[in-house]
Amino acid sequence: MSDSFVERLEQRIAAGAAPACVGIDPRPDRLPVDLPGADAAERILAFVEAVVPRIAAHVPAVKPNIAFFEALGWQGYRAWEATCRIARDAGLLVVGDVKRGDIGSTAEAYAEAHYRHCDALTVSPYLGGDSLRPFLDRCRDEGRGLFVLVRTSNPGADTIQSLALPGGETVAERVARAVDRWGEETSSTGGFSHVGAVVGATRPAELARLRGLMPRAVLLIPGVGAQGGRIEDCAAAFDGRGLGGLVNQSRGILQCFEPDASDWRERVGEAARTFAADLRRVVAANVQGGTVSP
Amino acid sequence: MSDSFVERLEQRIAAGAAPACVGIDPRPDRLPVDLPGADAAERILAFVEAVVPRIAAHVPAVKPNIAFFEALGWQGYRAWEATCRIARDAGLLVVGDVKRGDIGSTAEAYAEAHYRHCDALTVSPYLGGDSLRPFLDRCRDEGRGLFVLVRTSNPGADTIQSLALPGGETVAERVARAVDRWGEETSSTGGFSHVGAVVGATRPAELARLRGLMPRAVLLIPGVGAQGGRIEDCAAAFDGRGLGGLVNQSRGILQCFEPDASDWRERVGEAARTFAADLRRVVAANVQGGTVSP
Repeated sequence: MSDSFVERLEQRIAAGAAPACVGIDPRPDRLPVDLPGADAAERILAFVEAVVPRIAAHVPAVKPNIAFFEALGWQGYRAWEATCRIARDAGLLVVGDVKRGDIGSTAEAYAEAHYRHCDALTVSPYLGGDSLRPFLDRCRDEGRGLFVLVRTSNPGADTIQSLALPGGETVAERVARAVDRWGEETSSTGGFSHVGAVVGATRPAELARLRGLMPRAVLLIPGVGAQGGRIEDCAAAFDGRGLGGLVNQSRGILQCFEPDASDWRERVGEAARTFAADLRRVVAANVQGGTVSP
Repeated sequence: MSDSFVERLEQRIAAGAAPACVGIDPRPDRLPVDLPGADAAERILAFVEAVVPRIAAHVPAVKPNIAFFEALGWQGYRAWEATCRIARDAGLLVVGDVKRGDIGSTAEAYAEAHYRHCDALTVSPYLGGDSLRPFLDRCRDEGRGLFVLVRTSNPGADTIQSLALPGGETVAERVARAVDRWGEETSSTGGFSHVGAVVGATRPAELARLRGLMPRAVLLIPGVGAQGGRIEDCAAAFDGRGLGGLVNQSRGILQCFEPDASDWRERVGEAARTFAADLRRVVAANVQGGTVSP
């Protein structure tokens, strides 16, 4: 088996990359006005082709969110597949933000559909462990990556995730323990499991507690920037080697300009560079602070 | 506003239809071998065109599952859109089994993407109430239908759904209460909310308890047939008028034949007819049993 998703991420970080991920959430009304293309799907692809090299110069991974592509129908879905391909061809790791979750043969169909284009995927845990089996199998057998939704950054996340169980543990904490268990089958050279978790940046204290409950999980951390999370709030995800987290920023990078700006290419590159530099600084401070590796 | 999804369902049932739904889960290896088509997506479409009139003759609704279409890439996604269109053109109500769940503008993109082709959708509740807002808005403003995953029919569903909260209520029961609350904004002429719930047929006692916690929700009930649930197990969903449930069968209808059978069209029609007749009998027995309407 060639190197797994988690190992390739570890290698990039060991070679100096920031543990940074750029979210690709293309809203047609937020695209530059000067893009070519007959329809929104073509314009998105032109945008992706323009920005991917500038992203790849500074960060190791992207997280395209499939919802924005599905909103454009099958032409959008075709652009989704092309987006993943363009990013991979540029050497980026692709985390498909699909948040799928279904059972039995349906889960198998989703895993087949989305690992074709992506190195890692996000999934929803509400249907339980067996619904994740086709994804876990591909983590174990093919070195794919998986990020299970544990604690999200939205205000309403409390409806289910914050429910307190007898003993005081929350549902999110119980899911974190399950993620730790689901990841037992796999291990990277760096000691991390191939089964990670999505944990929002907007709740730093919880991030630290959840890190403790799943010490071998890579934490994919959205919510930095537009949603109010700060890069500093992600520090608890990282161990003494600077491994263990992958911090995502979306709107702050690919919507950092007004649609009529003429210098949007340069501004995207500069935003990606700044994001990576800021994150590298936070991780380095953490390493000097002496956090223990798992 | 024209009649809502729930009202159109009520009208069909009042006119004598069974509260039945046929799941469209097309696996290429389970399609008839004598179908035309250059690839799997074309063969699925030929299958859908052949079976939809035979389904529409006996049941009011279909539930295509998008995973099986996504597994075939963008050509599959195009076939998904065509499948929804063919079913609607034949007068069927289309419940898109997409189980989406995301936050903010992403949830908005999913709602936009899938209500374009479907009358009702399934969604996952793990991200909480605000993640459902774009769907709830369209239920209220456009008469769309929504089915929130509450209790699923798979063995591993217990991981989260059966967790007991202080006081003894389970997570699934707490979600059921939330569904009841989310549905307060809407009401059909029959008294049902536009916000329903997915509750598996494999746990009849739970079905009855969940019905009590969300008396105005239409319950979409999968798990009959291949997954081990019996039509009789669904009785608690229905009120004295035969309203309140929509029972789904998938493999038992569209995979009721061997791929090399020559009479698959007739067998699908016969399976749909039998399913509807069996369900009508169970609901009628329930009405005679005097169950009170919500």
